[in-house]
Amino acid sequence: MECEILCIGTELLHGDIVNTNAQYISKKLAEIAIDVHYQTVVGDNPKRIKNCFGIAFQRADIVICTGGLGPTQDDITKDVLAEYFGVEMVYDEGSYQHVKNMYSRFRKDFPKNNMRQTYFPEGSIILNNPNGTANACIMKGEIDGKSKIGVLLPGPPKEMEPLMDNEVIPYLKQFSKMTVYGEKLIVMNIGESAAEEMILDLIEKQTNPTIAPYASAGKVIFRITAKAESEERCIDMIKPVKEELIKRFGKDNAYVTETGKVEDRTTRLLMEKNITISVAESCSGGLISSRLISYPGISKVFKEGFVAYSNEAKIHTLNVKKGTLEKYGAVSEETAKEMAYGAAKRAGTDIGVSTTGIAGPDGGTEEKPVGLVYVCVYYKGDYKVKRLQSTGARDTIRERAATSALELVRRCIEK
Amino acid sequence: MECEILCIGTELLHGDIVNTNAQYISKKLAEIAIDVHYQTVVGDNPKRIKNCFGIAFQRADIVICTGGLGPTQDDITKDVLAEYFGVEMVYDEGSYQHVKNMYSRFRKDFPKNNMRQTYFPEGSIILNNPNGTANACIMKGEIDGKSKIGVLLPGPPKEMEPLMDNEVIPYLKQFSKMTVYGEKLIVMNIGESAAEEMILDLIEKQTNPTIAPYASAGKVIFRITAKAESEERCIDMIKPVKEELIKRFGKDNAYVTETGKVEDRTTRLLMEKNITISVAESCSGGLISSRLISYPGISKVFKEGFVAYSNEAKIHTLNVKKGTLEKYGAVSEETAKEMAYGAAKRAGTDIGVSTTGIAGPDGGTEEKPVGLVYVCVYYKGDYKVKRLQSTGARDTIRERAATSALELVRRCIEK
Repeated sequence: MECEILCIGTELLHGDIVNTNAQYISKKLAEIAIDVHYQTVVGDNPKRIKNCFGIAFQRADIVICTGGLGPTQDDITKDVLAEYFGVEMVYDEGSYQHVKNMYSRFRKDFPKNNMRQTYFPEGSIILNNPNGTANACIMKGEIDGKSKIGVLLPGPPKEMEPLMDNEVIPYLKQFSKMTVYGEKLIVMNIGESAAEEMILDLIEKQTNPTIAPYASAGKVIFRITAKAESEERCIDMIKPVKEELIKRFGKDNAYVTETGKVEDRTTRLLMEKNITISVAESCSGGLISSRLISYPGISKVFKEGFVAYSNEAKIHTLNVKKGTLEKYGAVSEETAKEMAYGAAKRAGTDIGVSTTGIAGPDGGTEEKPVGLVYVCVYYKGDYKVKRLQSTGARDTIRERAATSALELVRRCIEK
Repeated sequence: MECEILCIGTELLHGDIVNTNAQYISKKLAEIAIDVHYQTVVGDNPKRIKNCFGIAFQRADIVICTGGLGPTQDDITKDVLAEYFGVEMVYDEGSYQHVKNMYSRFRKDFPKNNMRQTYFPEGSIILNNPNGTANACIMKGEIDGKSKIGVLLPGPPKEMEPLMDNEVIPYLKQFSKMTVYGEKLIVMNIGESAAEEMILDLIEKQTNPTIAPYASAGKVIFRITAKAESEERCIDMIKPVKEELIKRFGKDNAYVTETGKVEDRTTRLLMEKNITISVAESCSGGLISSRLISYPGISKVFKEGFVAYSNEAKIHTLNVKKGTLEKYGAVSEETAKEMAYGAAKRAGTDIGVSTTGIAGPDGGTEEKPVGLVYVCVYYKGDYKVKRLQSTGARDTIRERAATSALELVRRCIEK
């Protein structure tokens, strides 16, 4: 089965938003081994929408469309689909109640415009949208004697994504007997080109599983993907490839993560081993704390974070010595150490982690240029300091500092 | 002139990366009033690439294509373009030197594969790519008796974007005598549907400038866009529309921002008026500090941030009373107030801003469900508290808390 994704939205054509829907749907389809050969974006224009549906149904078995399910006259995707399948639009009482319930908090009468949202192509499966008024639908039928499936989803990602996960994927699974399963291997402390070169023979040789690199700020990720009849089989196929990769990069530099974030592993280690942590941030300014707190259950080990941006804050809250700041400056190994120690002492935690640096665009000197960051972890009486020299925009430098700090925490725990 | 964007890359069809190229190109073309009616994505497959070029040249005057300029046999976009225009591929000495120079750091011989990167459709304008081996090109010619333009750009954004800015846009400007200019109006404290309803007559009536809503977590943004012969004229045209919108929403709820972030204005006000600020975060966990510190020059007013995630941290660092936590709980108006006050006192700042809430997925009760957040600003002896009840994932709830807090700071300053 081949699928085409059709996203409707003038805001996409204006470049106001990036098309995350196409990526989300593609990714989910890849996981159940349904191939996507084309993605198309078109504006809210009836003639062009019809044109795109026509092309898509010629070259694909399944067309998944997002957008155009709203209440206005422009929202015509359901009508177009009905036309292609040669069926009528019919009223759905369930969708009437759905829209009514959604509005019940705001108004008593049924908004007239929204009547459009209660009609669907005859014979379609209607999917209840818990996050918006627009119910979605799946239509199976024949076009020019060939069996085709049309899936219509709402445009807003927070409405589309749950429908894709809970309704569309389970439905489409029947058409795919294969599973695609991937694992992400994160590689730290080795540059992108160098990392790729170290395993180039494997990348070129492997066909199933495949190994694909993709670079990301401050780290390199390799995705190992297998296609087989079951997830278990995929996992078995991935295992030796993964082990070979880890062997080549060294297990201190490479490990598997769920989402490709270094903190996946860092937070898991902290929680599993019940190691408490506090954070003292200067240039990263809250990013480390924020990324840690993104993990449910972290309150067990994360005690306190300090954004000690000013010198006074460093002295007053973290007990950094005035003399240290005067002698070495705020951006120095010595200050980073005192910040990490100060956080751990103040919050009474096992680990204190700190950043101090020059995020720019101003404030750099020849000796200490923009992008210079010191990261320090204090743990069990020991200090581990890392000096970074990043390039890029202010927020890029800050993100890299946070990533390095979270990675350094992992290394200190696993040591 | 109508344009179609064609992005080539199997990684896009797998959902490994999001298509930022299509957004970037669309945005740049919108600025010079060249309409984009379609965006298409296709994989590295010769037959399908040809199919897409054929469709694109039928329905657009300009086709801008990214990807497929690399050295491998799969990289065929230049050949396809030459075929459509009915010209030969010819050798370009400049591109030979370019590739050679790019490789000179790594190797002495000319990599044989890369010879493909030295051939271009005859008569095309070759664009020097300072960030990669693949030079780009613009081809103007006739297809089926109609004048068409093909633009081929490399796929990596860091190579594509400078070429788009410095070469393609200046070239295409000759075909457009118009400028498009837009401003973003941010609307807070009014729901998306309600906001839209308040100006529905304007949205429907306006054709130039146009008013288009786009929703974003915890806020609504209206983009007002004018098309005219100059940017000055656009600004003049936008002014009365903007004023009418601000009048309807109330100037306390609506204002223009550069990037659509509430903190654009909050940080500007803080810096202009030299009002110092400190932050006490529980559920938002560093996001407020981090979003403030994203602005260069903020060190003048941002003094210190506290991520007081545990009760001990609230008591110990922010001086929240134990009795308050026991009587009202950590997630309460009273705790939010003491946190804000505690931050301001501890850091010696004019403003203290705080958040405390339940970000989930666990920890909610009937009385205090997941998504309940209190935000408080302490300023000049006064407290302003806002109670939020958000839905969504943990990070969505946290982001909304931070957005609300940054907005509340603005309101307190502007009051």
